[in-house]
Amino acid sequence: MKIQKLSEDTRKNLLEDLLKRSPNSYGQYEASVAEILNTVKEKKDEALFAYTKKFDGADISVENILVTEAEIEEAYRLVDEDLLRVVRKALKNIEEYHAKQKQYSWFDSKPNGTMLGQKVTPLQRVGVYVPGGKAVYPSSVLMNIMPAKVAGVDEIIMTTPPGKDGKINPTTLVAAKEAGATAVYKVGGAQAIGALAYGTESIPKVDKIVGPGNIYVALAKKAVYGHVSIDSIAGPSEILVVADETANPRFVAADLLSQAEHDELASAILVTTSEELAQKVSEEVDKFTAELSRKEIIQKSLDNYGYILIADTMEEVIETANEIASEHLEIMTANPYDTMTKIRNAGAIFIGEYSSEPLGDYFAGPNHILPTNGTAKFFSPLSVDDFVKKSSIISYSREALEEVHKDIEQFAAAEQLTAHANSIKVRFE
Amino acid sequence: MKIQKLSEDTRKNLLEDLLKRSPNSYGQYEASVAEILNTVKEKKDEALFAYTKKFDGADISVENILVTEAEIEEAYRLVDEDLLRVVRKALKNIEEYHAKQKQYSWFDSKPNGTMLGQKVTPLQRVGVYVPGGKAVYPSSVLMNIMPAKVAGVDEIIMTTPPGKDGKINPTTLVAAKEAGATAVYKVGGAQAIGALAYGTESIPKVDKIVGPGNIYVALAKKAVYGHVSIDSIAGPSEILVVADETANPRFVAADLLSQAEHDELASAILVTTSEELAQKVSEEVDKFTAELSRKEIIQKSLDNYGYILIADTMEEVIETANEIASEHLEIMTANPYDTMTKIRNAGAIFIGEYSSEPLGDYFAGPNHILPTNGTAKFFSPLSVDDFVKKSSIISYSREALEEVHKDIEQFAAAEQLTAHANSIKVRFE
Repeated sequence: MKIQKLSEDTRKNLLEDLLKRSPNSYGQYEASVAEILNTVKEKKDEALFAYTKKFDGADISVENILVTEAEIEEAYRLVDEDLLRVVRKALKNIEEYHAKQKQYSWFDSKPNGTMLGQKVTPLQRVGVYVPGGKAVYPSSVLMNIMPAKVAGVDEIIMTTPPGKDGKINPTTLVAAKEAGATAVYKVGGAQAIGALAYGTESIPKVDKIVGPGNIYVALAKKAVYGHVSIDSIAGPSEILVVADETANPRFVAADLLSQAEHDELASAILVTTSEELAQKVSEEVDKFTAELSRKEIIQKSLDNYGYILIADTMEEVIETANEIASEHLEIMTANPYDTMTKIRNAGAIFIGEYSSEPLGDYFAGPNHILPTNGTAKFFSPLSVDDFVKKSSIISYSREALEEVHKDIEQFAAAEQLTAHANSIKVRFE
Repeated sequence: MKIQKLSEDTRKNLLEDLLKRSPNSYGQYEASVAEILNTVKEKKDEALFAYTKKFDGADISVENILVTEAEIEEAYRLVDEDLLRVVRKALKNIEEYHAKQKQYSWFDSKPNGTMLGQKVTPLQRVGVYVPGGKAVYPSSVLMNIMPAKVAGVDEIIMTTPPGKDGKINPTTLVAAKEAGATAVYKVGGAQAIGALAYGTESIPKVDKIVGPGNIYVALAKKAVYGHVSIDSIAGPSEILVVADETANPRFVAADLLSQAEHDELASAILVTTSEELAQKVSEEVDKFTAELSRKEIIQKSLDNYGYILIADTMEEVIETANEIASEHLEIMTANPYDTMTKIRNAGAIFIGEYSSEPLGDYFAGPNHILPTNGTAKFFSPLSVDDFVKKSSIISYSREALEEVHKDIEQFAAAEQLTAHANSIKVRFE
């Protein structure tokens, strides 16, 4: 891995490089995505079946688009029992963590008869998109579905592209069932997003669409935003390790590689005050890479978006970490909790040398669907919050309104909204 | 107002009519908005000054784009003292309500050395857009800024278009100052959104943009979503009154009109089980309208999107209200709290005959920036939540990781992510 001295220039270049990976810079696909969405909106199921034939090579019809109980039972027979045991252990942790995120309706009343509050209501129906292809990520299925289940969503609808044989990967199906999906439909790509956003004869319209996908899926989600809600648009994976001279270079190297292996756009960055650590991590990275099965992806990812940066002070390290706002941030310093208090922007923060990033991907409980590409400055991990919405509650008694009615009428008059003023006035004629 | 019997057909037609007002159906402006955004991204301040000259007829330069302390002092001299007093009273209520929305960082630890948590961090810098034009809505300034202030946002930057004289309306300025804006810039339209999203020499890039605006502003916000965060895109205002025979027809009529006066696309709907009430409300609406200053707007709004619907049962009334998911929902029934428990979708719920909608617009405390156009099914009122973001916290001890490391390795292996497995394995070599 390349080692660089941290300077204003390296930081600026690095940020520019990383932002190039933004899912917002793929305008050239927008037209085809818009066409797919419009066709699905208009022709509904017919369009879904045609696109699934075209893009996935599968024959899907109204007869088999919905996964049956028999297919789920078959999937259970095909999935390794030991993996199922691990999935269930992970799910327990995920459920326990998300349960703590639950927000409750509240109200506040005063003796003059005012009651103000906030009512929390689960969304009624949500769509979870799960990518197809060779890579199968059951962990992602769990992480998308469980927060919706904990929130109390009535219907959790999953869509995922079928293989050429019209089947869904059994591990994906079992994960969906275990996590609590209420229906699974065999459709993928922008057409699946269109179906969830507008509804078809087979697939009901949802209130919100979540889940990662390729560039077509990301652009389709962005296009239907407003018509339905969406989660934040996922970009390539990232890890940033903040370390001082106390860090174990083998651990740091292994953790950087765990993200670099995702894809060629993934980014792995170490920012440290220790030149010695930088050197050793670079060596360990080379050693590990040679042995890992995904070495080609890793090498490209490291060449493009892998950095080891040496800073003069821990303040500079922190400042850089906050500027980059990494999806995953690991802290391996002498006082990691102290360092954590200074971190402003990160999707998930892993504290200390035994909190390796994959622990969060699979097992610990917090969601692994995290803001990428600098969006941790304003977006949050996927959570129970994403599957509820709030209504304000306002209740005034006659007495309470009478106390303030002249003030409200005056405010309305200042905005020249006389019908607003009238609706208060009429109550005290 | 037209009175109709509620049926499947009337409900379907009504929903279709209302959705036509969606800010998502204005594709024809997208190209000009994209051009403005690109020009601002590239030419920064120069573009802002040119567009401000073109669209607002004002000469703005690097010298005067930022509102000065002297301008704010002048504004205070121009604003009615009595209005200022009301603004301060309203602000106190708004601050008090929003303070109750604050979420706190939390953690949960176990004796084996695991600590999981969620860190809540305010956004660093946000942009608040305030429309210009003849209508001046200081209440909207308060409602946009206060939640950001309560959340603890460092910099709250407001932009609003100047008049031809290069000045900002004094009431707007005073409201901004009172609510806690840290800077006010004289720029409006899609160009203001571009400046806030990308930054210019004068205006710093923000993390999130909130605030209502015309169709150009709405489309610009949607276009920059992902690059920065935005609040939900505001459509025309709406009120839906749920009432039985106990409701006061004058109150209902006055409240319907308070929304109809906003603009010609505003919607005012009464759904009731009482034919008598329907008839009386219709008469009162006519009487009031004749006297109100904005009668022309009101008449057009009522003709287009005003409905009185008579249902057979209160269940049908509720079902219709939930289907429409109105921005504002008033409940005037014999047992309004009981009715409220059945309301699933609404931006704000006003309970009982003294909780007139304008009470919420100006004074009670809950935010008046609410989801419109059916989006209350998945969006929430603007709140303190909009101005914070969360980071997951994961901390495992050696002991805790050792207990589960084999499970995690197995999960990673099942996803064929060997570098993920390696990062756990290396810790127990």
